[in-house]
Amino acid sequence: MEDVKLLGFWSSPYVHRVIWALKLKGISYEYLEQDRFNKSDLLLQSNPVYKKVPVLIHGGKAIAESPVILEYIEETWPDIPLLPKDTYDRAVARFWIKFADDVVKSVTAPVFQVFEDEQGKANTIQKALETLKVLEDQGLGDKNFFGGNSIGLVDISYGVLGIWLEGLEEIVGIKLMEANKLPRLQAWLHRFKQVPVIKDNLPNYEKLKIHLQWRREGAISGSLKS
Amino acid sequence: MEDVKLLGFWSSPYVHRVIWALKLKGISYEYLEQDRFNKSDLLLQSNPVYKKVPVLIHGGKAIAESPVILEYIEETWPDIPLLPKDTYDRAVARFWIKFADDVVKSVTAPVFQVFEDEQGKANTIQKALETLKVLEDQGLGDKNFFGGNSIGLVDISYGVLGIWLEGLEEIVGIKLMEANKLPRLQAWLHRFKQVPVIKDNLPNYEKLKIHLQWRREGAISGSLKS
Repeated sequence: MEDVKLLGFWSSPYVHRVIWALKLKGISYEYLEQDRFNKSDLLLQSNPVYKKVPVLIHGGKAIAESPVILEYIEETWPDIPLLPKDTYDRAVARFWIKFADDVVKSVTAPVFQVFEDEQGKANTIQKALETLKVLEDQGLGDKNFFGGNSIGLVDISYGVLGIWLEGLEEIVGIKLMEANKLPRLQAWLHRFKQVPVIKDNLPNYEKLKIHLQWRREGAISGSLKS
Repeated sequence: MEDVKLLGFWSSPYVHRVIWALKLKGISYEYLEQDRFNKSDLLLQSNPVYKKVPVLIHGGKAIAESPVILEYIEETWPDIPLLPKDTYDRAVARFWIKFADDVVKSVTAPVFQVFEDEQGKANTIQKALETLKVLEDQGLGDKNFFGGNSIGLVDISYGVLGIWLEGLEEIVGIKLMEANKLPRLQAWLHRFKQVPVIKDNLPNYEKLKIHLQWRREGAISGSLKS
């Protein structure tokens, strides 16, 4: 067995990217849950720049930032590939992995921002929908998964559109991911959540909702103060 | 000769990342200067998501986003490698390439933001210095270049610290990159700018300063309006 450790926080979609990649490749690892209010020496030492999870420690060497960790996993354990073989297709995959940052930012904005009026909120929701539409039309298209017929690193990078987005939607009473607005993306999400490794490795939904609600209150009271 | 086209804008440090990588590898290409106020059909078709430069078109296939293009160049033309061979070292390189986003954000903030008072400006400058210090201490260390003794993709990704930062500093009358504050980073910058491919492929400094000044005025009047 290889010496692989993962420093994580149960509710983080970024940590789940790494969990899913390791499990899809069948790599055994030790999971070390971190306390975000009392950061361990191991976390501080292994990610001194950001002091954040996820951190993968392989043979004593630490790697931070989920997209960097995903590339490392792909290169270190190339069996069961999660990126396309073709160089151009791999570039396309990396483009959409990067685009996930935009998607996360735009779908969380309606939840974590304070709006002066209803119009401001409506515009932010509209913007999130447009970003998701770009992902659907140009990224996913008519494919089953982003890379074709099986799950890969791009799909994993959009895992936040699963129960995290559902939780956020429930909290603020909006619905972005609807069949009449984003039919192919919604169908993809359904397929994605049916993949055993995904289905079996998700945070508890009710617990996650309480956590997201708490994060939302913190973000809102923080911005009202500043 | 391979069919390689680069869509660029003369003043962009992101476009220069790609120019430098191609030139370091000795790849011939056709450079197509773009008009940012009148975007060409080629640009709109080849980067429909962001509609921005740089875009690399290789054999008719387009790739956008400079970090994605750099990885593509490295994989397509592996001679004269610009990323380390070792998987872990490559992960470290990717971490610092990603960190360049933070650096660009923090060093440009004092120039493109409007501050309510001098304290706000001083804090932003302090924050930029701290980010550069992290890069110096944890990224560069005592090495000549980020990857060791020769230039690579990480160095290229920090090209903005060259004449772009100098121009910005001159415009606002601040100085971040000083020997007493960032001695190793300043020495690295000096070495970086001496590499022939870098030295011979930089925008004209006076023209760049006028452009940055114009961008600054646009950003400031934009934020005052909003």
